[in-house]
Order: sequence, then structure tokens, then C-alpha cells
Amino acid sequence: MANIYEMTHDVLYYEADETGKLSLPYILNLAILSSTMQSVAYGIGPDETHTRGLGWIVLQHVMDIKRRPNIDETVILQTYAREVNPYFATRIYKIFDTDRNELVSIESLYAMLDMEKRKMARIPAEYVALYGADVVKKIPRLPEPTKISADESALSLDYRVRYTDIDSNKHVNNSKYFDWLQDVLGETFLQTHEPVQVNIKFEQEVRMGDVISSTATIGDAQTVHRIMNGDIVAAEASATWTVAD
Amino acid sequence: MANIYEMTHDVLYYEADETGKLSLPYILNLAILSSTMQSVAYGIGPDETHTRGLGWIVLQHVMDIKRRPNIDETVILQTYAREVNPYFATRIYKIFDTDRNELVSIESLYAMLDMEKRKMARIPAEYVALYGADVVKKIPRLPEPTKISADESALSLDYRVRYTDIDSNKHVNNSKYFDWLQDVLGETFLQTHEPVQVNIKFEQEVRMGDVISSTATIGDAQTVHRIMNGDIVAAEASATWTVAD
Repeated sequence: MANIYEMTHDVLYYEADETGKLSLPYILNLAILSSTMQSVAYGIGPDETHTRGLGWIVLQHVMDIKRRPNIDETVILQTYAREVNPYFATRIYKIFDTDRNELVSIESLYAMLDMEKRKMARIPAEYVALYGADVVKKIPRLPEPTKISADESALSLDYRVRYTDIDSNKHVNNSKYFDWLQDVLGETFLQTHEPVQVNIKFEQEVRMGDVISSTATIGDAQTVHRIMNGDIVAAEASATWTVAD
Repeated sequence: MANIYEMTHDVLYYEADETGKLSLPYILNLAILSSTMQSVAYGIGPDETHTRGLGWIVLQHVMDIKRRPNIDETVILQTYAREVNPYFATRIYKIFDTDRNELVSIESLYAMLDMEKRKMARIPAEYVALYGADVVKKIPRLPEPTKISADESALSLDYRVRYTDIDSNKHVNNSKYFDWLQDVLGETFLQTHEPVQVNIKFEQEVRMGDVISSTATIGDAQTVHRIMNGDIVAAEASATWTVAD
């Protein structure tokens, strides 16, 4: 059985967007916060993995949102590693309100990187034991994001990766992709639509100074996204939305 | 005597930059968090001011940094309103470590805005009473940031204001100016220098979709900054630095 980790968090004003609700980038930040805290609690946090020359990388997040919590609301952040095989792991994140209503659920696919060789590494057996993850032969695949089709008329904006986009892992904080995905949709769309699901698949790392282009098409209750770094696909994503109150 | 408000905060991983220390934008976010919490505790938080059609605006911050706290470090956020006259107020922010060593000190100048008329409003007397601020005739001016001189060869980059730059006050979160100020200096400078003082003066509001240009010159232990929104000066700033360890 997976070891479930929980912590409480009060939503801070700067974690909300203009709706006064927890923003998409901060939903992801809080999720990663909970798994980092779990790892630290088990003695296998970032310091330990870095000492071994290892680092977790995220391959995909599938995020379902029932209700985004408000500024000052206390939420429970829950996470556990569900399944692992030698090279991949699935992790579940949930955000609950204080009545244990589920607000957000995220299914994430991770792999382990040998930081020096920049290639996949085996997940240490003691990590698997500590997280209590189910050892499986094959990790079930997550659904693919909807692909952007070349002939649709698309919105597109360029973003240069900034110093403040880099976190203490010396990589672009994954939450920044949500900035780029959302911003290109424009204020009118964002003010009138509430996100219900976001599926993002990371293909290639981006670095400080890179100029990425965020492209999106707006369809019927769905947006489809691609983040390009020059000729290279950095990420693909799709999202579903409801009309906001 | 001013009513002093304090709260503790654990520095979260996403509040740090690549140095693993609390980033400049988040130093400001935590400061504003503490004064917002003070205002809410006194029943005169954002909801109350907005109901009255009022809003606080920041005119200037002068930030002195002795040591930036690390990820996971517990800090004490302290704030109080020091002086008010009918139209202006000075507020002090401090960040202490758990041994009460002062890490950061910020002196800030505020004014009150009539949100509908977009002009200065009188600070309500009951606010002054609740904050316990000294009522003075004249608010002492803060030192001016060093001016950028036109003939110096300057670094300059453009930034478009993004959806995720807007906070629940429906304005650009002031911490974003620090993104623009820092990023233009480049990774090499930022990796080798630690900020000691930042003096930023806000001249004109910027809005979503605006493209601002952040210009900076790097001098001897000092950087001088200007943020332009087209022909209009949005902010001026200067900062001093030491060579990082």
C-alpha cells in the first residue's frame, strides 16, 4: 500500500489569479510542494537525490479540477506514489477542502534522470520501499493530450525564459508552462472560462534565455496547445473549460 | 504607538530562485502578505476597502537585505504602519529568522486611491486608529533611486504583461517588477551577485497586454533601472549588490 502524505496549506493572496481563486500555476506548485515534503520527510528529498546524481523529471500531468479554492481557504494537500517499475513512476496528487471534498486531482508520470549523463536512471529500490509504491511491470499510460492540427488558425505568442522562471533545481519551474498555456488564450477567454481538465506532456527541457512560442487553438469547450522551442516540441497540452459564473 | 503585526512563514521551494534562497519577488510577496493579513485581522482588509471603493497603492519600496532566507527556513514576518498624514502612509516590513536576527527590512510609501475616480483619496481615520500609526503633517520622503543616465550603454529587454502577472486586485502584482528588473541583468550577473539594497519607485500603472521595456546599466556594485511603458516611465529603480559567495 502506498504511503499517503498529507499537509495543510492556506491559499495565499499571491497564489490566486484575478478571479481570487488558486491559479493553475500554483495548483501545480502546491502539488509539487507536497511530494517534495513527503520525500524530505522520508529522507529522500532533493538534497539526497542530488547527492546521488539523480533527479526526478515530470513527463506528464493530467489535472482534473472540480473547484479551485479561494484566497485564505485552508486546503489539504495529499500525495502518494501509486506505481513504479524500474524506470517510471505514477504519482497521485489531490487537493481537498477541510470537509474532505475533493477539489483537484492530478495523475503524474515521473522518470528518474542521471543528472550527469542526462539519461534515464533506475529508481532506487529503497525509494520504492519508502514510498510504498506498487511495483508493476508496466506503468499504465496516461491519455494523450489532443493534438493541435496544423491547418487550424492558431493563437501564438513568444515567451523568453526568465531568470525568475528557474527554481532551485536549476530548471524551469514546471508551473511556468501553465503561464505560457494560459496567457496566449487572452484575457477575455480567461475571464469567461474556468478550467476543468488540463493534460500536459513535457517533451523537451527549455532553458533560461530560450524563446519559446506558445500556440493554441480555441475549440468547443476545449483548447489545444503546443509549446515550441525553435523547431523542437517542448510540450503539448489540451484543456477543457466551462463557462465561468 | 503603531500596532505591530507578526506571522511566521516557512519558505517554500517555489519561493526561492536558483540560489535556493528566497527570491526578490517573493520577499515582496511575503511582505505584502503580512500587511494584508494585518488588515484582515483588523477588519479592514481588501474586501472592506473595495466595498468603500478604495484601494492602497504602493508608491515606493526601499528594501535592505542582510541575508536572504533559505528554502524550508522558518521566518517571522513583521509589519506596522509607521506614519500617516491625510493622503500618505509609511509602512515598515521586516523579516527575521527564528533567533530574531533581522534578515530584510523594507520601508514603503503608500497612498489611498478612489478606485472609481482613479484619484487620491483621504485615508479613513478609523484605519489610522486601528493601525496605530503616528499622525504627522508631512511624511518624510524616501531616498530617490539613482537615475539612469541617457548616455550610458544600457541593457534592455521587452516584457509583455501576462495574465498570470495580474493578482486578485486586478492589477499587476508589484513583485513582477522585480522579475523585469532582475531578468534584464542576465544569468551571469545574477549568479555572481547578491542583492543588498533595492529602491523602486512606481510612477505609472501597467496593464495586461502592455509591453514594457526594462532597461538597466551595470555599474560598480550598483545597477540602475528604468521600466518604460511606451513613452511613459512606469518605474525607476536602483540596486546595490555584493559579489556572491
